[in-house]
Amino acid sequence: MTGVRVPGWLADRLRQDDDRSSRAVWSALAEPGDAVAGALVGACGATAALDWVAGAVSGAAPQPVPLGGTDPPDAAARRLRAAAERWAARWHAVDPDRDLAAAARSGARIVAPGDPAWPCGLDDLGALAPFALWVRGAPPSARRSVALVGARACTTYGERVAVDLAAGLAGRSWTVVSGGAYGVDAAAHRGALLVGGTTVVVLAGGVDRAYPVGNARLLEEVVGAGGSLVSEVPPGATPTRSRFLQRNRLIAAMSAGTVVVEAAWRSGAASTAHHAARLLRPVGAVPGPITSAASAGCHRLLREGVAVCVTDVDEVVELAGDVGADVAPAHPEDDTRAVDGLDPLARRVHDGLSRRVPHDTAQVAARAGTTVAQARAMLGLLELEGFARRLGSGWVVDAGE
Amino acid sequence: MTGVRVPGWLADRLRQDDDRSSRAVWSALAEPGDAVAGALVGACGATAALDWVAGAVSGAAPQPVPLGGTDPPDAAARRLRAAAERWAARWHAVDPDRDLAAAARSGARIVAPGDPAWPCGLDDLGALAPFALWVRGAPPSARRSVALVGARACTTYGERVAVDLAAGLAGRSWTVVSGGAYGVDAAAHRGALLVGGTTVVVLAGGVDRAYPVGNARLLEEVVGAGGSLVSEVPPGATPTRSRFLQRNRLIAAMSAGTVVVEAAWRSGAASTAHHAARLLRPVGAVPGPITSAASAGCHRLLREGVAVCVTDVDEVVELAGDVGADVAPAHPEDDTRAVDGLDPLARRVHDGLSRRVPHDTAQVAARAGTTVAQARAMLGLLELEGFARRLGSGWVVDAGE
Repeated sequence: MTGVRVPGWLADRLRQDDDRSSRAVWSALAEPGDAVAGALVGACGATAALDWVAGAVSGAAPQPVPLGGTDPPDAAARRLRAAAERWAARWHAVDPDRDLAAAARSGARIVAPGDPAWPCGLDDLGALAPFALWVRGAPPSARRSVALVGARACTTYGERVAVDLAAGLAGRSWTVVSGGAYGVDAAAHRGALLVGGTTVVVLAGGVDRAYPVGNARLLEEVVGAGGSLVSEVPPGATPTRSRFLQRNRLIAAMSAGTVVVEAAWRSGAASTAHHAARLLRPVGAVPGPITSAASAGCHRLLREGVAVCVTDVDEVVELAGDVGADVAPAHPEDDTRAVDGLDPLARRVHDGLSRRVPHDTAQVAARAGTTVAQARAMLGLLELEGFARRLGSGWVVDAGE
Repeated sequence: MTGVRVPGWLADRLRQDDDRSSRAVWSALAEPGDAVAGALVGACGATAALDWVAGAVSGAAPQPVPLGGTDPPDAAARRLRAAAERWAARWHAVDPDRDLAAAARSGARIVAPGDPAWPCGLDDLGALAPFALWVRGAPPSARRSVALVGARACTTYGERVAVDLAAGLAGRSWTVVSGGAYGVDAAAHRGALLVGGTTVVVLAGGVDRAYPVGNARLLEEVVGAGGSLVSEVPPGATPTRSRFLQRNRLIAAMSAGTVVVEAAWRSGAASTAHHAARLLRPVGAVPGPITSAASAGCHRLLREGVAVCVTDVDEVVELAGDVGADVAPAHPEDDTRAVDGLDPLARRVHDGLSRRVPHDTAQVAARAGTTVAQARAMLGLLELEGFARRLGSGWVVDAGE
């Protein structure tokens, strides 16, 4: 690092070897999902990696850095050179003091890997993990969180399902993670708030920018209710299309499971689902009418085997919860006492009975296709259980009350 | 067979060794799904098997018959004795001449294994295969048939989907197989008739009994339009609960695939789906709103991995058709030309553009997180494709018309 002309902000960081604020710089310098930046920071640490970039920018021959990975060494070196050019294009626009001041103004702070507030699920992203999170509100809860995502252009069905699932999950102390967009995202956040639950909004732009503007009040409510707004880009950063797509990997990685509530054939929610699947996190999709294009993306995920069909809160908890501990309860209709619950022979004999015309045991056996002895035994059982009764010298169905 | 007193009808059959009409007798003597009867007929032939029963009924010591199967010999012998008692209970009520006369009156005939009209898919049922089919109308088509099944108590959604799928399948010369019940079944038959297609009704009772009575006209229309009514029980036989359940195995076995259109949590349609799965035939389920209990059975089949999610005729044809030859076409939205179709680098550069404020190449590179050279190259491409245009000394998004 000797002999390299560095900006004042970098000189400070190098002196202090302040990993957290070097990561803040990286969050501005590299685009979300820049795997080369992630590998460089992983290999050298955030501060030394900045020093490396300073060298490259100043034109000094940068030292080779072994980044790991499976690329042959010269391909890796080429990728690193190309990345250095990218970073150089931004080098002089980066201003961490401005970003930190903006963060302070909006009540945001930086959370870095290793902090107690760091959602450790993010570490599964490897070189694609964010350098840091800018957080407004409470630390984003790491355990027992579910992502509920879906289309902006949702139907009232999708909105209703998102509110219901979110409220049900929040009511069981699950954190609801989503993207703060109109439609399903907003409904999910609102559902959690409705029952006093915690919800996390993962934004594609800075946490000081309410985006979309129409959800500004909702985002404030989330913070006020003990939830949080998080982003991997610094305050003031614009939400761009590629940042929206990259943001989806954070939603997936911060959650124990991802559920797509309603999504059209092409949809950002499907990208979140695929991120979750790549991280081997469970993915659910809520089915809808096949006559609704708004559910075509969910059905696609089901057909392609990416997602499991989920239809209520129990099934979402089973999906995202601990194997064995969070099994959905039996369907209520499986408990109802009915003729169906009888053993097959008894059911056949029951079928051999009429409701009105009495038949004797031999006739019942012939009608049911059983032996006379079997019919006699089963008629006794059926009488005991209240399914058959004697009428005259024969037997009829006992229809109960 | 010497010394055994046999009814007149049996004496005739034994004299002629008439397999077809002996099978007609078995269809009356054994309940549908009686695997012991199936194994006995399989081992000796239908006529000799009747002779064996005549011996057992008359009290003569019946000869042991090796039925195959995995039971130990004494267990098999015990099962055969019990079965003989069942058959004995019906022996004197069986009257094939009456059944054949009733069949003739209603225009029905017997189709037996080996007949050209025999749906060979039934043979996969092994010992559970029907002895014969009583058929009204055209011979049930064996190739390219799909079962569309579902709840009696369906919603207008289920009815509409059944009609649409059936009409679409019949329009592509697929035969639609169903059970003739109210609700989804009737809608499936009607959908096929709407487009002049062929449909097969598999009944739980005799083919001369319109069941349910409210569908009598529909069943006649099916016959009139070149379809068929089929049953494994003789004319006049009552549709009992266990016959409905057994009937479902025929629907599954006669079809290349089974699709459950709409079904509640507990449902006969689910039993058809399970029969199809056991026969290793493809099973589909049509999803519906999770707020509708009428779709809970479909969602259950999806969750349990029994069924694949199907949402249109193409997907049903892909499910039931020949692998490779009947693949569903690409979704129309996958063809639309859009920014999404650009390569990731071009898309990032596009994201770096504003709609109104022009930026020069270096600014675009910084905004997009690319090198200046990359931004320059991609801007050229984007201009060529109509996604970017020059404005003053910089670049903006070209929003098209």
